[in-house]
Order: sequence, then C-alpha cells, then structure tokens
Amino acid sequence: MFKAKAYSAASKTSPLVSAQIPRREPTERDVQIEILFCGICHSDLHYARDEWHDVMPAIYPCVPGHEIVGRVAKVGSAVTKFNAGDLVGVGCMVDADLTCPNCREGLEQFCPSQVLTYGGPDKHGTAPVTYGGYSDSIVVDEHFVLHIPANLDLAGAAPLLCAGITTYSPLRHWGVGKGKKVGIVGLGGLGHMGVKFAHAFGAHTVVFTTSPHKKEDALRLGADEVVISKNADEMQKHAGSFDFILDAVAAPHDINAYINLLARDGNITMVGAPEKPLPVAVFGLIMGRRSFSGSAIGGIAETQEMLDFCGTHNITADVEVIPIQKVNEAYERMTKSDVKYRFSIDMASLKSE
Amino acid sequence: MFKAKAYSAASKTSPLVSAQIPRREPTERDVQIEILFCGICHSDLHYARDEWHDVMPAIYPCVPGHEIVGRVAKVGSAVTKFNAGDLVGVGCMVDADLTCPNCREGLEQFCPSQVLTYGGPDKHGTAPVTYGGYSDSIVVDEHFVLHIPANLDLAGAAPLLCAGITTYSPLRHWGVGKGKKVGIVGLGGLGHMGVKFAHAFGAHTVVFTTSPHKKEDALRLGADEVVISKNADEMQKHAGSFDFILDAVAAPHDINAYINLLARDGNITMVGAPEKPLPVAVFGLIMGRRSFSGSAIGGIAETQEMLDFCGTHNITADVEVIPIQKVNEAYERMTKSDVKYRFSIDMASLKSE
Repeated sequence: MFKAKAYSAASKTSPLVSAQIPRREPTERDVQIEILFCGICHSDLHYARDEWHDVMPAIYPCVPGHEIVGRVAKVGSAVTKFNAGDLVGVGCMVDADLTCPNCREGLEQFCPSQVLTYGGPDKHGTAPVTYGGYSDSIVVDEHFVLHIPANLDLAGAAPLLCAGITTYSPLRHWGVGKGKKVGIVGLGGLGHMGVKFAHAFGAHTVVFTTSPHKKEDALRLGADEVVISKNADEMQKHAGSFDFILDAVAAPHDINAYINLLARDGNITMVGAPEKPLPVAVFGLIMGRRSFSGSAIGGIAETQEMLDFCGTHNITADVEVIPIQKVNEAYERMTKSDVKYRFSIDMASLKSE
Repeated sequence: MFKAKAYSAASKTSPLVSAQIPRREPTERDVQIEILFCGICHSDLHYARDEWHDVMPAIYPCVPGHEIVGRVAKVGSAVTKFNAGDLVGVGCMVDADLTCPNCREGLEQFCPSQVLTYGGPDKHGTAPVTYGGYSDSIVVDEHFVLHIPANLDLAGAAPLLCAGITTYSPLRHWGVGKGKKVGIVGLGGLGHMGVKFAHAFGAHTVVFTTSPHKKEDALRLGADEVVISKNADEMQKHAGSFDFILDAVAAPHDINAYINLLARDGNITMVGAPEKPLPVAVFGLIMGRRSFSGSAIGGIAETQEMLDFCGTHNITADVEVIPIQKVNEAYERMTKSDVKYRFSIDMASLKSE
C-alpha cells in the first residue's frame, strides 16, 4: 500500500477536503496511474451527499470521481496493453467478474459483480470501499483502463469516460446515423455530448431545451434545430417524426410530450434518472409501437471505441477547468446548472495540498 | 345500398338492440360477406359506452364488432383474392390509403388515414360512420379481407382477428421463440391468446395472474409456469430473467414490478391500455437497458400470416358462443371478467330478428 493525495467527504453534509487515502501496490494485472484531470459528474455530488441512499447508500469517507484521465506510472508484470508513460482513462467501473454472460458480451456495466470506481466493495481490502478520481493516483486492473488518443485535449477528454460513453452507447445501440432524425433533451453535461455525437454520426439533430438562451450554443455544438420545449405549438410541429430521442434530464418532466414526437417504432431512452417515477400514457406507446428505455454508461470495449471515435473526430467535452480547491464551489454551481458543460479538475492543483 | 340486420346502440347508456343498417353495394374492389360469427372485444364495450371519448369519441347509432368471420356472398369485378363461398375474416380495419410509408411496409394499422371497422369515417358515404360486425352482412375492400383456414372452428376463429393478431404481432416483433423466457400478464381474452402463441412459438411461457384459481387453466392453455403476481416472493424469484413480457392488463397495475423481472435488453409491451398514465421508475429501465413499449393489432399481411399459423397449429380462441340477443348480458359479464375467454356471437341468431 501507498498513500495518495485526495479530496474526500466525511459525511453527507461535509465539504470535500484534502485527505490522504490508501492505494494498493499494483498487482501483476494492475496499472498505476498518475491522474491529470478528473471530470465532475452529477453522480459525484449525489453520492457525496448520499442523495441516492435507497439504491446506493454512501459510505464515508468518500472520494468521488469517475471521469479520470492520466498517465501510466507503473504496470504489473502481466499487463499487456499498457506501458509507463501511456495516456489512459478510467471510467465508472474498476472491476467485474469477466465471466458472466454480460461480461462475455462486453457489457461489464450490467455485470452483477461490477465494482464502481468509487463506493464499491474493494476486493483488494485496501480500503472499506473503492476511492475515485479526486486524487493524484489510482491503481486499476488493466481490463478497466482505456487508451486516450494523443490528439485530444486532456481536460476535455476526462468527461468522455462517463458523460461521453453514457450518450454514445444508446445513440449507437438505437442505430443513430445518416437519414435519422434525433432529439436530445436537455443541454447539460450529458446532453451537450449527445449533440456532438448525434451530429458526428450524421443524424439530423434537434435539441430540446427549456432555456431560449441556450439556442445559439446548441447550434454551435452541432444541432440542426432547437425546439423550446415549453412551446406546445413548436413541439406539435415535430409530432410523430423522431426516430430516436435521448433524454438527459434528471428533473421531473413530461415524458409523454416526447413520446408523442416519436415516429413509428421510435425509441426514447433516458440517461438521466428522475428520483420519482414518470407517468407514462400507454396510448402514446401503443400508437406507433414506440418504446421507452433506459441506458447505463457502456461496456469497456465500447468505451474504447467511443474514445477512438473522439480521437478521429476530435471530440471532447466543453469544460471549465478548476483547481481541486474549488470543488465544493463547483458542486454548488452544478446544482444551479451553472457550468458549460462540465467541470474538469486539474489535478496538478493537488500537489500544493 | 342494401339493408342489413344488426344490433346497434343509440347512446352511451342505451343497450344494444335490433336495427337495420345500410351497407353499400360492393364496388369492383369489394367483397360482400355473410357474417357467421363475431367475437366481442373489450373495445366494443368501451366504444359503445363512449369510455374512450378523449381519444375516439363514439358516434351514434353505433354497431360494434371487429372480430368477424363469414362466407363470401359476392365479389366485385376487380377482386382477385376471393370467390363466393370462401371462408373469410375481417379485423379492426376496413380501409387505409395504402400509399403511405406505413402501408407500403405492410403496417396499415399505423396509417394516418386508416379507417376502423366501426366508428371510422365512411369514405363511401353509406352511413355517417362505419358499422361493425354485429350484423348479418358487411362489405369490405378486398385488401382488408383475410382467408380463414378451413380446419379452424369458426366461432373460435373470430377472436383471432383482434385478440389473436394483437398478441401474435408483438410476440413476433420482439423475437419470441425457442430459448426465450416469456411472460404473459393477465389471463383474459388477449392473455389467453398470448399464452397459446408463446407456447406454440416454443418459448418458456410464464403466466402472471392475480387469481390463483386460474392456475390450472393457464397450464392447460400452454403455460410452463404460473406466478401469482400478488406474491412478492414468488415474483422476486424471477427477477432479471425474462426476455419479453406481454402485458394484457388494462386496469391500473404496478408496471415496475414487471420491468424488474426483465433480463438485460428485455422488453415489456402493453397491449392493454390503462386509462391513466402508469408511473415508471426510470432506474428499472436504466439498469439492464430494458424497454417499455406498446403494440397495436398488426398489419394485414401479418394478420394473414397469423391465421395461417393458427391453421397449421390448430389454434383458436377459447370461446363461449352466444346468440346476439345475449350481447348486453355478455357486456355485463365482461366487466366482471366472467368469460373464458371470449364471447363469440353466432350470427344465425340474428335471422329471427
């Protein structure tokens, strides 16, 4: 074991503060990574504040962070895919059984023994739970480490590891591409990545937002059209026309208004998870054989595919880079949607702690 | 025009009574059918009582009935598929534009100009709206007329035209077959057909019912297992295991209890339409990339495919045959689910009116 610098929260009402955490010495299958940037995901905030208590109770101290980009410091003797000095990323998972049917199909995110990057059971016994990327170092089984294309801006690449794959995977799964009309609901950390991918896949991309002032930015990000979702007339013009809609809004909202915009066999997939159930009018699904789905991140192979796609198309998240000392302030700003569109922590700031 | 005998309702509170209705003389594309049996669908009752006012307001007098089996009496000069004397069926549709993208794909049920068998706009001007199958005669464009295999019991074949295709189509669409685990929720007119088809397709078929006394009958119909849905422990044993669930319950019920039984990428499709929106917990969809859908009858080509399948496998609905004079009593019994599993009106009873 060795000590790493980190920012951790001691309880659901505590701010994140400087701390030292244990990391294991790399085993033969492990990659030790010097973390350069870590994106801030809404999940970090929900977990640190124990807001998902019913599905995933927080265990303290907690160290959030699952949008990790860094450089390989050291590799175990059996590691084959990485060498010291490589640019790498780690997303939401750091372990899984790799033998179950989901893992065998490359869908580790649905493995029943999946270990999340933070708050998961630490199989190595280094700590009570896994600690995430708000740290200067992390040690991860090579299966869960990704190559980061060298041309990408690293601060902007970090959010690809969660916001990127969370939007890329359902767009691919539901066949978004040329000739398809695709909607993106909500222009935040997830939504802005959805727009970039839908546009890059060649789809006619329509952004739905409640905020007229986001229109210009949506067009800049790649939208072909922007619809103000509060305007019923504007919505009605698109009735029955969408092949696919990606809904990235976690706040309560009227899902039926979007179901009615789907064409025959159209699908709307949620990647934001509203706390309370959404009322769904079944007639809207029956008329047009439409479907309503959810999607969770993506498997490791697909995450690498997404990163390679981003390298080819030079896609990164739009980020505001902050030092880790501003993480609590960033959390407050996120609750007000005051970020375009993701915070990325420059981990060099941790050196002074 | 000629006069046909029928049973019609004069208002939403009126019983169905004997009446004469106008039918058009067959045009060159039409088939005139002597109706032998007509199944009673829940939609008939909802429409006659104007219970679907918001989506499809009833126009009176109304003549319900869209599970029609009969014998061809006469054909128009351009009719190619039918001859006098043929056994034929008519389902929920009697017209569509046949030129829209849905029609061109054989999915006339989603045609925006689709004309329902009763209560739809009568393009021929014979009557204010189309009149359905509670009658001794009907005249229909040959495109919407189906061949009935000669070996089938005609009273039991009638419900295939709605209950049959409504369950066959989603089971086929979602790939139900050998090696799949399939649930059927609700053992009524639709559900009992779902069980027969899922079993005939070779799937491991599980019936969910709130009524323990239906267990024996579910097994007789082809179920491999029966789960009492009120028993949470019994439900939990099946968590995450279903490839597909067909939900034929129109009454309010907890859809999340079934979503949680789906395997990864599993789908639950509603063919019953609860009046009020169903609350859907989005986490249940996200975890496992599950989807929640609806389905409406099926296209004409698929309806013929279904009838041919029924001919090969000797599948018909389990019916209680009644004279038309008992139709009001039958409606009352249907509201109490007191029928195994569909009423089929023997139209010979109309001769005495």
